Amino acid sequence: MVACSGGADSLALAAATTHVAHRRGMAVHGAVVDHDLQSGSACVAARAAEQLTELGCDEVRTVRVRVGDAGGTEAAARRARYAALTELRPHGALVLLGHTLDDQAETVLLGLGRGSGPRSIGGMRPLDVPWARPFLGVSRTTTVQACAALGLRPWQDPHNADPRFTRVRLRTEALPLLEEVLQGGVTAALARTAEQLQDDVDALDGIADRVRRNVEADGVLDAASLAAEPPAVRRRVLRRWLLDQGVPELSDAHLREADALVGQWRGQGGHALPGNFVLRRARGTLLVECGERIPPTG
Amino acid sequence: MVACSGGADSLALAAATTHVAHRRGMAVHGAVVDHDLQSGSACVAARAAEQLTELGCDEVRTVRVRVGDAGGTEAAARRARYAALTELRPHGALVLLGHTLDDQAETVLLGLGRGSGPRSIGGMRPLDVPWARPFLGVSRTTTVQACAALGLRPWQDPHNADPRFTRVRLRTEALPLLEEVLQGGVTAALARTAEQLQDDVDALDGIADRVRRNVEADGVLDAASLAAEPPAVRRRVLRRWLLDQGVPELSDAHLREADALVGQWRGQGGHALPGNFVLRRARGTLLVECGERIPPTG
Repeated sequence: MVACSGGADSLALAAATTHVAHRRGMAVHGAVVDHDLQSGSACVAARAAEQLTELGCDEVRTVRVRVGDAGGTEAAARRARYAALTELRPHGALVLLGHTLDDQAETVLLGLGRGSGPRSIGGMRPLDVPWARPFLGVSRTTTVQACAALGLRPWQDPHNADPRFTRVRLRTEALPLLEEVLQGGVTAALARTAEQLQDDVDALDGIADRVRRNVEADGVLDAASLAAEPPAVRRRVLRRWLLDQGVPELSDAHLREADALVGQWRGQGGHALPGNFVLRRARGTLLVECGERIPPTG
Repeated sequence: MVACSGGADSLALAAATTHVAHRRGMAVHGAVVDHDLQSGSACVAARAAEQLTELGCDEVRTVRVRVGDAGGTEAAARRARYAALTELRPHGALVLLGHTLDDQAETVLLGLGRGSGPRSIGGMRPLDVPWARPFLGVSRTTTVQACAALGLRPWQDPHNADPRFTRVRLRTEALPLLEEVLQGGVTAALARTAEQLQDDVDALDGIADRVRRNVEADGVLDAASLAAEPPAVRRRVLRRWLLDQGVPELSDAHLREADALVGQWRGQGGHALPGNFVLRRARGTLLVECGERIPPTG
């Protein structure tokens, strides 16, 4: 299934997908999500669906979603879109998305701005079943040229030029300035960095899973064995284990503090965690306890 | 030993260092490097040395260096500076450098622009003996305020406002724009990311060293054992081993291709490497051979 907004990226993707799939005797479904955020969006969706049919999609479905505003319009639209595509997806199908090299660079910059670490600046994955992004190494210029060469007329989303959106300002202001100051190649460099970080994150996550199997028994961790691991592995083991104990997602700063019970052990007391939990070290093991509840007043 | 340019960062560092060191009964040497890149630089250096003496440094030494232009003035000045400081360093002393949170953010952005992976966007290390950067978590605003509070008059380097320098444009144009577009906190976020990446890189480097000890014998690598490792570890093992075999530093793209002999083995021939080397897989081992030399013509 190929998702298409009618824009150049996903239109070029739909053309490439139908071409390749039909040569291999595979069926291609087209999916159009109408976000209903602009007047005339139903027309745009209908035109995209028409183009998918013209490109030879075996079945084309359009769905209109309601976009809320929790976390900002961009994030809400993304959530609604992925939910709708999940609904539309035929059993066992991959969902091809038109994200390009430029989208990847913007995602890395957004992640950097949040400072939430290697995981978020790793950007989007080329394959994250059922999602696939075959154009993640292809620049937006190329998709526009492909549409022109194929005689396709992509829709120009006015939102893509609206400076109220962070991503638009990254694309139209921040990245061009960085390209100029750093003398070119920044978009490709950001995408390359993302790829390497994904491999690093995968390797460390896999190593942490293995370590956890060796140090965990009956829901507690063996502190001395864990202490022999490097901090980046220790914090990953702690994070996964704490999540499984029902502790809410922790920031890196919080994990560093919790890890002091492993890496800088000098007999200190329990470490308070969000969600009213306490991480404690006792008789060489780490365990999570529910903290004292403060009785409601009145 | 504290290195001081006379600017706010290193002047505040010298003040903090002499204060702390003398309370602990430790001697502090001051070092001033005159880069001789601007007229009047000898005066600036002399004034910095004077301030170090006034702050109570036990010994102050100034050295004038010759800055070449290989790789650009910024890089050449840095090389000359580190070489001079290495010369001046008393045996066993740490060299304290005034790099701040802002310098770290700029370094991460510079590394991103190069796209040379987690290692380069990991930025500067707080401790990389003999170099120590105690202000890596302190913002430039704070060092300026500290100088004002202590009645110190820092030197304003005109190079710090010269837009011919990439770093200056990152500081004065790119970072402020990113702060605006991403709604603040970018400098701190970049520094936080650097810290996490350093831990990840350290962990993976350590793991790769351990793996290498298990898969290397008599200068060749056991390919099947290496293949069981995740790609990020495999490429690190290959990189270190190839460097030790005399192969020049390889790009990530090159390492990925070389790694195909491990991760995507299907009986292919040798893989050509820079420096006229060939990486070959034979009887389950990886080995490096010198390629055929092309005889000089004429």
